[in-house]
Amino acid sequence: MDDIFSTNQTRDLIPRIREFVETELIPLENAEHLTGNFSTVARILDQKRELVKKAGLWGLQHSVEEGGLGLTLCEFGQVSEVLAYSPFGHYTFNCQAPDIGNMELMHKYAPDDLKRQYLEPLREGHIRSCFSMTEPEFAGSNPTRLGTTAVREGDEYVINGHKWFTSSADGAAFAVVMAVTNPDAAPHRRASMILVPTDAPGFELVRNISIMGDASDHWGSHAEVKYNEVRVPASNLIGGEGMGFTLAQERLGPGRIHHCMRWIGISERCFDLMCRRAATREIEPGVMLGEKQFIQGFIAESRAEIDAARLMVLRTANQIDQFGAAAVRNEISAIKFFVANIMLKVVDRAIQTYGAMGITDDILLAWYYRHERGARIYDGADEVHKSALARSILKGYGLDVKKKAADMAATRA
Amino acid sequence: MDDIFSTNQTRDLIPRIREFVETELIPLENAEHLTGNFSTVARILDQKRELVKKAGLWGLQHSVEEGGLGLTLCEFGQVSEVLAYSPFGHYTFNCQAPDIGNMELMHKYAPDDLKRQYLEPLREGHIRSCFSMTEPEFAGSNPTRLGTTAVREGDEYVINGHKWFTSSADGAAFAVVMAVTNPDAAPHRRASMILVPTDAPGFELVRNISIMGDASDHWGSHAEVKYNEVRVPASNLIGGEGMGFTLAQERLGPGRIHHCMRWIGISERCFDLMCRRAATREIEPGVMLGEKQFIQGFIAESRAEIDAARLMVLRTANQIDQFGAAAVRNEISAIKFFVANIMLKVVDRAIQTYGAMGITDDILLAWYYRHERGARIYDGADEVHKSALARSILKGYGLDVKKKAADMAATRA
Amino acid sequence: MDDIFSTNQTRDLIPRIREFVETELIPLENAEHLTGNFSTVARILDQKRELVKKAGLWGLQHSVEEGGLGLTLCEFGQVSEVLAYSPFGHYTFNCQAPDIGNMELMHKYAPDDLKRQYLEPLREGHIRSCFSMTEPEFAGSNPTRLGTTAVREGDEYVINGHKWFTSSADGAAFAVVMAVTNPDAAPHRRASMILVPTDAPGFELVRNISIMGDASDHWGSHAEVKYNEVRVPASNLIGGEGMGFTLAQERLGPGRIHHCMRWIGISERCFDLMCRRAATREIEPGVMLGEKQFIQGFIAESRAEIDAARLMVLRTANQIDQFGAAAVRNEISAIKFFVANIMLKVVDRAIQTYGAMGITDDILLAWYYRHERGARIYDGADEVHKSALARSILKGYGLDVKKKAADMAATRA
Amino acid sequence: MDDIFSTNQTRDLIPRIREFVETELIPLENAEHLTGNFSTVARILDQKRELVKKAGLWGLQHSVEEGGLGLTLCEFGQVSEVLAYSPFGHYTFNCQAPDIGNMELMHKYAPDDLKRQYLEPLREGHIRSCFSMTEPEFAGSNPTRLGTTAVREGDEYVINGHKWFTSSADGAAFAVVMAVTNPDAAPHRRASMILVPTDAPGFELVRNISIMGDASDHWGSHAEVKYNEVRVPASNLIGGEGMGFTLAQERLGPGRIHHCMRWIGISERCFDLMCRRAATREIEPGVMLGEKQFIQGFIAESRAEIDAARLMVLRTANQIDQFGAAAVRNEISAIKFFVANIMLKVVDRAIQTYGAMGITDDILLAWYYRHERGARIYDGADEVHKSALARSILKGYGLDVKKKAADMAATRA
Repeated sequence: MDDIFSTNQTRDLIPRIREFVETELIPLENAEHLTGNFSTVARILDQKRELVKKAGLWGLQHSVEEGGLGLTLCEFGQVSEVLAYSPFGHYTFNCQAPDIGNMELMHKYAPDDLKRQYLEPLREGHIRSCFSMTEPEFAGSNPTRLGTTAVREGDEYVINGHKWFTSSADGAAFAVVMAVTNPDAAPHRRASMILVPTDAPGFELVRNISIMGDASDHWGSHAEVKYNEVRVPASNLIGGEGMGFTLAQERLGPGRIHHCMRWIGISERCFDLMCRRAATREIEPGVMLGEKQFIQGFIAESRAEIDAARLMVLRTANQIDQFGAAAVRNEISAIKFFVANIMLKVVDRAIQTYGAMGITDDILLAWYYRHERGARIYDGADEVHKSALARSILKGYGLDVKKKAADMAATRA
Repeated sequence: MDDIFSTNQTRDLIPRIREFVETELIPLENAEHLTGNFSTVARILDQKRELVKKAGLWGLQHSVEEGGLGLTLCEFGQVSEVLAYSPFGHYTFNCQAPDIGNMELMHKYAPDDLKRQYLEPLREGHIRSCFSMTEPEFAGSNPTRLGTTAVREGDEYVINGHKWFTSSADGAAFAVVMAVTNPDAAPHRRASMILVPTDAPGFELVRNISIMGDASDHWGSHAEVKYNEVRVPASNLIGGEGMGFTLAQERLGPGRIHHCMRWIGISERCFDLMCRRAATREIEPGVMLGEKQFIQGFIAESRAEIDAARLMVLRTANQIDQFGAAAVRNEISAIKFFVANIMLKVVDRAIQTYGAMGITDDILLAWYYRHERGARIYDGADEVHKSALARSILKGYGLDVKKKAADMAATRA
Repeated sequence: MDDIFSTNQTRDLIPRIREFVETELIPLENAEHLTGNFSTVARILDQKRELVKKAGLWGLQHSVEEGGLGLTLCEFGQVSEVLAYSPFGHYTFNCQAPDIGNMELMHKYAPDDLKRQYLEPLREGHIRSCFSMTEPEFAGSNPTRLGTTAVREGDEYVINGHKWFTSSADGAAFAVVMAVTNPDAAPHRRASMILVPTDAPGFELVRNISIMGDASDHWGSHAEVKYNEVRVPASNLIGGEGMGFTLAQERLGPGRIHHCMRWIGISERCFDLMCRRAATREIEPGVMLGEKQFIQGFIAESRAEIDAARLMVLRTANQIDQFGAAAVRNEISAIKFFVANIMLKVVDRAIQTYGAMGITDDILLAWYYRHERGARIYDGADEVHKSALARSILKGYGLDVKKKAADMAATRA
Repeated sequence: MDDIFSTNQTRDLIPRIREFVETELIPLENAEHLTGNFSTVARILDQKRELVKKAGLWGLQHSVEEGGLGLTLCEFGQVSEVLAYSPFGHYTFNCQAPDIGNMELMHKYAPDDLKRQYLEPLREGHIRSCFSMTEPEFAGSNPTRLGTTAVREGDEYVINGHKWFTSSADGAAFAVVMAVTNPDAAPHRRASMILVPTDAPGFELVRNISIMGDASDHWGSHAEVKYNEVRVPASNLIGGEGMGFTLAQERLGPGRIHHCMRWIGISERCFDLMCRRAATREIEPGVMLGEKQFIQGFIAESRAEIDAARLMVLRTANQIDQFGAAAVRNEISAIKFFVANIMLKVVDRAIQTYGAMGITDDILLAWYYRHERGARIYDGADEVHKSALARSILKGYGLDVKKKAADMAATRA
């Protein structure tokens, strides 16, 4: 039964992508590929990328003018869900974060030279990139607090700073770095985005941070990076001085939709695994696990929650398509915490359904359990989004909490 | 921002109804009307019904051929939400359960005589009706177990039985009674629906059952009823012998949508009350309740959950409009427990936000807290729907739990 | 199996009290007594009080010097649990709030005249009392904000103020009133407790506030009260000027233990009702409700949670006995929200287990559902206790949140 | 403030052990030791074991007759909590599962020869052991279903079977194997425990199963093992033929206490980490994370829950000490699911408090998150214990679910 957000594009694309994922990617799931270094499986995925190209599915997220399919965000969201049935889907289709965000950003705001040198090979999948924003010394709940600086000297910026969670930095060709260029401007006007080639002198990949047991490498890395007097041409600026936060916001709105749709794909995949187990695992002679109400409860609640989550996300994507991300900031906050929590509940129930096997790397579930716990943290922790959403609502009732807090901070200072 | 399920009809109707509810009904909320007997407020509401008629909003749920607006279920759902901002909305607009269900049922299946005698005055709001199905001796989780019988004697049925939760029986003109007419048929073919005037000899209203503190009366009653050798003409049969469950199912599908949309209206109303309180209640000099994160958490989670619930219900209504209720049985089960639980959480959070005032009848919340606890029970308890949904899903995975249980029951017997 | 907090006293008393409750009080539970006015059942309970006296169980909470049994708080807690198996237990044994708190307070701090005139008949059950602290205009989360004043004029206090939730005021002989006597002292030193006879001119019982459907009367009332130029002798002061908060704290520590043990008794009673239903309700031929895992989950989780709650409370009572309430303020905060939430969950599960019957007043559950929702609000809302507990813990880690907030308030002012 | 279960032994031991853990073990926590192979850190821990011996703390779990301290289970529980502040505590003190269980089992039931050859070096920490019970082909919820057989041939048993989750098998000197010796006996009398040296021909360590990202090795391994015609002397039988389940039960009762106390230690450790972070992490200039109510909620709820969990476990340990494990089977089921869930909630809240750092291996939390998810599965999944507890309670109400299920199974067969 077609759902309300289906379009001709999605009706055509989704079965093809689903088949690709099932045929080419799901068979790659095994303990070797689900633990340790990403580079192990990347070698195979790079071959699969050739199949994607042959199938005419490469670059499907791009606008028509970029040679893509011109999918709306709402359509791409539906595609993204299907890609997420495998942890290798987005990478194989070259629409993985952070590259997809960097491509979109550069397409809109990078000068032509940077486009030629970096965006084109990125689109082809010949290079990878990273996004260098988060800093260990400052809480992510207030992104305007940044220690990294980019000082203009002649035709260059000299960059100094300390970042972490610069995801996929290991092996990337360049980083888009968020740095303070205008320290005396208003807080939201202080930072800029600057492209830094990773082979620039002073770019130091301190380490791939071990996350939930894996330091990983390659696209799977989450690097700690230092910028030690790194010099880049002033023309590496993306989108104008002081526009860092504006661009970050523009990036994050659709980015959160991408995450959310990925989480729904993950939820559906784990739901499917859970049902398969429930239907086939014998717990007493002739009695299947799925006959037990505890398991039925897992299945029923998950079904309702995933459906709700998908509707919320596609509704929001649809509104972004119509009105822009700024108009639906509340809805974006809502889906960020709502969907992340549902996904983690579904993953958890699926593990419980599998019993001892559920915690092994013989089955995909542990991978999601480990690597998606961060979903409630990155791109705004649950608590940050809940508070933001509530304050925005309360403003409509005449209480401007943010303003009061700012006044308080001013008083304190 | 218009949402995806808006239509010209809803865009026209909803603001008018909302204004009516706010102007005419919300001012009636006070401890006197929110406790004790419904007849107290009914006197006032009957006057408001005249205003509804004047405003051309009477009978808005009816099909065009019945002189109504021909709203789809999805459109009526949106209207129903707005009516539910007041506990008096549906009654005032004469689209309250169980009358709305009885009207639809009789419109489709009653012989012309019954229509003339009962349906027409019911539509006009001159009489009320009730639906007599639930029995104290049998668990509602299996509706095919019924003790009430209707035995054909000549041109009459002779009805004997014991019912409760025959809601609104007090003062009703007639009951639609579910009774076994064909005890030897297959379980789902045993019962029929028969119209019984409440002044028929042998119809005994034992009591208005006290529910959560109120026995109430009039439309607000939930009666225990005995049928003692009640004789009615055979022509009082609605829809054919043995069709009782088929008709009940047909009634329950849209009925659950009606409930769910009502619950969303309740949730929105309580959400609004909660936000008003948060924005205006001073807890320390200069500090408002809404500045506290615990309260912000209540608001944010409620906002996300209510939005999700509405999308789920309207999506399901939309599918019923397109494909019929039988095609979306799973979705109906899902919304039944999903939405009821969200509503009760929102009501609870709103009470907590009001503190001591929240448990008083000075504010609407306690009314919903008391009278909607049943939402997780009536029309199928949470547990029944979760189990049904899961079993239906597992059937798609090759495990037919229901069949196994039936085989087991047969073996046991 | 005796548990760790049993003593010879509890081993002797508890079976006797349990039998009394089961024989004399539980049979009184019916819709008539569980709805409407308390005075209806009070007439019967006053006769039962005579049986309590005959059984030598009257006044069991008193110290030996007052002619009581000298139970420790930990022992009385265990007794209180058993009394709470019936909603009429505490009243019948004359150890109901607010009288029990007033008796203890007056025993320790009232001048002899007041003791003779008020305490003695109170102990005998000849009169009742109330405690008048909460005000509608000020959030209960900060008890130092009070609008009621008592101005010394000659040998009298002249009291003006507006209170609500002056529980049991209807028919009480006197109120202990919290009023500001020293407006210029430090916030915690401003208020005093003064005994006000309810027949004093200017004492106005505005109304019995309708709570969750019942305004009730008599001991069951929660009154709104106005003090209009009420004059009482200065000797009606209890415990010294400015000692109001100190006495309130002293009263609240054991008072919260009393509440918590009562809640455990309620939980046990509902648990018992739930299990009886599960074991005997047939849902299919030959299949009992208790065979269903959803219900088993309700039972198992409730069992674990109630046991945990009891241990927490008795441990805390035991520590109060040893070290005083001030030393275990954190533990008291913890049990206040922990136990209230467990009770409400158990009540809710029991209702769900009973299905439609669970929401009727044919069974005790709806009474607790309605009248104990306030448990998460009165004597400090969940949110207040959670915040207080966390701040106290964080102080041990070097973060003095309270001090920071105070500094901020000072800055703001 | 001493708590009710403290004894002179615990008052003496706990500060000494706590200091050891803090000084010697906590500094070992780093990404290198918290990921990958256990053998890396084992080398260091083996040196720490010498310090334990020097400090006279070696073997503290043993009875006096074994040269230990003769701690009660309730006392050892308190010690075990403190050991669990570090993931390396139990190993370093040689009271880690499965060795501690094997030592106790062999002390009671092994013939003298086996004691001399295996138990003595095990006590000294010169060898390690494993316990081989779980089988991939059969659900752990019914432990009487076993595929592994031990057939008596002359003076030998010939063992064939397939096991997994034979924890710590890698490098162990012997396994205690559960195998069917008496296939025609009643289900609970079919299996026996037999000691199998790991160098016996036919003992095949198939692999160390990768769990949540780590296959690990050494004590940290969870092995898949095949027994291919393994021959051992008949005198390797522990405790008599057919006694396998009886011994397993005897082992599991205290074993679950051990687990639960370990989980409380983990909870306390994570609680401490959470509070440290909350007190010191600046989120805005001058504003600490712990000032936020969301975080305060995490702290307060965790504090209450951990305290409740500890009381539940020590109460149960105390009862086992007094009445034996068989008498408190219900209490053991209750703590198994109650405590495991609390621990996992606390770990999760601590991670959320740390934000991005919380998912890194720079801090201990991710280790517990990954390696303790199994707590809700091993030694009886939540669902198994909930169902068992509820059925046992319902038996007291006259409903024997287990018997009905058995009758049903018989009917089916």
